[in-house]
Amino acid sequence: MAVSPPFTLAVDAMGGDHAPEMVVRGVALAAERHPHARFLLVGDEEKLRPLLRRVKRAAAACTLRHASETISSDLKPTAALRMRASSMRIAIDAVATGEAAGVVSAGNTGALLALAKIVIKTLPGISRPAMAALGPSARGDVVMLDLGANVACDARNLVEFAVMGDVFARTVLGLTAPSIGLLNVGSEELKGDERLRQAAEVLRESHIGPQFHGFVEGHDIAAGTTDVIVTDGFTGNVALKTGEGALRLVGALLRQVFSTSLASRIAYLLARPGLDRLREWLDPRRYNGAVLIGLNGVVVKSHGGTDAQGFAHAIDVAMDMVVHHFNDRIREGLSRIGTLKVMAPASVPVDLRPAS
Amino acid sequence: MAVSPPFTLAVDAMGGDHAPEMVVRGVALAAERHPHARFLLVGDEEKLRPLLRRVKRAAAACTLRHASETISSDLKPTAALRMRASSMRIAIDAVATGEAAGVVSAGNTGALLALAKIVIKTLPGISRPAMAALGPSARGDVVMLDLGANVACDARNLVEFAVMGDVFARTVLGLTAPSIGLLNVGSEELKGDERLRQAAEVLRESHIGPQFHGFVEGHDIAAGTTDVIVTDGFTGNVALKTGEGALRLVGALLRQVFSTSLASRIAYLLARPGLDRLREWLDPRRYNGAVLIGLNGVVVKSHGGTDAQGFAHAIDVAMDMVVHHFNDRIREGLSRIGTLKVMAPASVPVDLRPAS
Repeated sequence: MAVSPPFTLAVDAMGGDHAPEMVVRGVALAAERHPHARFLLVGDEEKLRPLLRRVKRAAAACTLRHASETISSDLKPTAALRMRASSMRIAIDAVATGEAAGVVSAGNTGALLALAKIVIKTLPGISRPAMAALGPSARGDVVMLDLGANVACDARNLVEFAVMGDVFARTVLGLTAPSIGLLNVGSEELKGDERLRQAAEVLRESHIGPQFHGFVEGHDIAAGTTDVIVTDGFTGNVALKTGEGALRLVGALLRQVFSTSLASRIAYLLARPGLDRLREWLDPRRYNGAVLIGLNGVVVKSHGGTDAQGFAHAIDVAMDMVVHHFNDRIREGLSRIGTLKVMAPASVPVDLRPAS
Repeated sequence: MAVSPPFTLAVDAMGGDHAPEMVVRGVALAAERHPHARFLLVGDEEKLRPLLRRVKRAAAACTLRHASETISSDLKPTAALRMRASSMRIAIDAVATGEAAGVVSAGNTGALLALAKIVIKTLPGISRPAMAALGPSARGDVVMLDLGANVACDARNLVEFAVMGDVFARTVLGLTAPSIGLLNVGSEELKGDERLRQAAEVLRESHIGPQFHGFVEGHDIAAGTTDVIVTDGFTGNVALKTGEGALRLVGALLRQVFSTSLASRIAYLLARPGLDRLREWLDPRRYNGAVLIGLNGVVVKSHGGTDAQGFAHAIDVAMDMVVHHFNDRIREGLSRIGTLKVMAPASVPVDLRPAS
C-alpha cells in the first residue's frame, strides 16, 4: 500500500473549540508547507466557503464536502456512532473508502476513536488502538502511549502498545533502535501489578527485547530515559496533562518574575533569544497531533483548544504517517511479535478483602 | 489523645541515600526550629555518636537508641517485617508503645508502610493507609493522595482518601472547607471507570459533598483547581514524579539559557531576586515529607535522596501532624462518613474479550 504524493488528507472542519475558522487557517498553513498535498475539507458548506475564499492558495488544494451535522465535544461516543452525516463521520468514511490517505480532527476524542474503530477498523492482531504523541525531554523528543484511548489495559494491550510505539519512534523520530520503557511506580522488577510484570516479561523475550529498558518512573518521561514510554490510557492521560500543567505553571511564574521590576524587564530583554527558543521548544502546539495507532488508516487527533499553527502541526504528523507507510511497518512489527506466547488478557488484581 | 510539647519524635537515623550524616544534620536543623521537641534517634550507635558530637545543641535534644540492623532500599517488605532489630522497626515500635508521638524515616517506602501497618495498625474504619503530601500550584499548595501506598484502589479506598485528604488540608493548610477533586481523564461525569464514578457518587452524598468539586484532570494539579486531589497510588505516584520531572527539565533548560552568553549572564543577575524566590518556592525540599495517613500514629516518609534541609522539613511535617491532633480529626471525619452506604469494594472493570 505504497502512498506517494499527491495524496489527499480528509479534514474534519467542524471539530475543535475554534472551528471552523481555526481549521481552515490551519489547513492553509499546512498547504503552504506541503504543496503537493490535497485536502478534503468536510463540514458546513455555507460556513466554509467564505472562510476558504480568504485563503486563496489553500483553497486550490481543497475539495469541499458538505456535512449537515457536527459532533459536539460532550456527545457520547454511542450517540456519535448513530450520526451518519456528521463532518467527523464523513471525513473518516473517506479514509475507509480509500479516497483519503488519512484524517485529522480536533473534535470529540471518544467519538473519533469509536468511529475510527467501527469504520476504519483495527489492524489484524491489534486488540485495541492506542493514542500516541511526542513530548519534550532532556534528551530529545519522546513517544508516549496510550494517552487515553483505553482507560483500562491488560498485559496484552501494553505489549501491543510497545510494538506500535517502537514503529512510531522509528517513523517519526527516525531512530533505528528506540529504547522502550514501561511506566511503573518504581524501576525494580517487583514493582507494580501482575499486569505490568507480565507485559515486561513478554517484551523481554520479544524481537524488541534488546530495546526494552524495563520499568521507568514518572520522572523518566521528562528526563528522556527511554525514547518510548508505554502505559495504559488512564495513567498516560493523567501523566501527559500533569506534565503540561507543570510546564504551564512555570511559564506563568516566569512571566511574573520578568515583570516585577525594571531590572527584571531588562533581564528579560537580555535573555530573550534563549527564552524564546525555550518557549518554542516547549510550545504545546509543536507537540499537537496525537496519532490513533493500530487502525487500518492514519487518524490524527488534534487538541480541541489549539490554534491554526497547532492544527497545521497535527496535519504535519498525519503527513509523516502517510509518507512513511507507518501502518505497513506496524503490520510488520506485529507479525514478528505474533508468534510469541501472548497470554490471555490478565486481569487487574482486585483486592476483595472487606474493609476492617 | 491531646499531645502537647514536650513530646518525642522517633527518627530512623539509617534510612536514606545519605544516612546517617544527612539525618543527624536534619535533626540538628529541626531541633533549632523546635526547641521543645525531643528526638529518639535510632540507628548504629557507633556511627551516630561521633556525628552527634558535631551538633552539640541538637545532641542535647536527642536520645540515642542502638539498632544493629538497617533495612536496605531494595529489601522486600516481607523481609523487612522479619527484621526485629532494624532502625526503622525500633523507631516504629516507639510510636506503638506511646514513647514517641510520631516517626520520620527516609528509608525503604514499602518496608515503612508494611511495618507501620503491622506495628502501629490502621485507624478503625480505614481499609488502607494512604500516602499524602503537598505540592505547589498556581493557587497555593495542594494536597495529593495516594502517592503510592496502594497500587490498586477501589471506590471505598478513594472515598476514605478523600475524607483523610480533607482533614489533611484543614490541618496542614489551615483551610476551613477545602475543595476536593477526584483525578480522572476528563471532567465529565461519564469519564473514567465504574470505580471512579461510584466514589464520586458516594462523595457527593457525604458530609464533604459541598466541598466535592467532581472529577479533575492532570493539568488541574498545578492549576490548583482544588485544594485536594484524590487518586489511586499508581496514578498518584506517576503524576507526582511526572510533575517533578517536568519542573526539573525546565530548571535545567533555564540554567542553560542563563549561561549561553554574556548578555544572558547579566540577565540572570538582574532577575535573580525573582528567580531565587521562584526556585525556593518550587524547591522539592520544601515539599519533602509524605504522611502515611490512616494509621494509629504519625508516620512521615522523607524522600530517600533528600539532604539535611529536606529531612528537617519532613520533621516539620510530623510536628504539624502531632501538634494539630491530626489523627483525632481523621477519626472524627471517618465517623461522619461511616453511616453512608459505602458499597462493597468495586472491581476494576476488566475487558475479557479475546483480541481480534
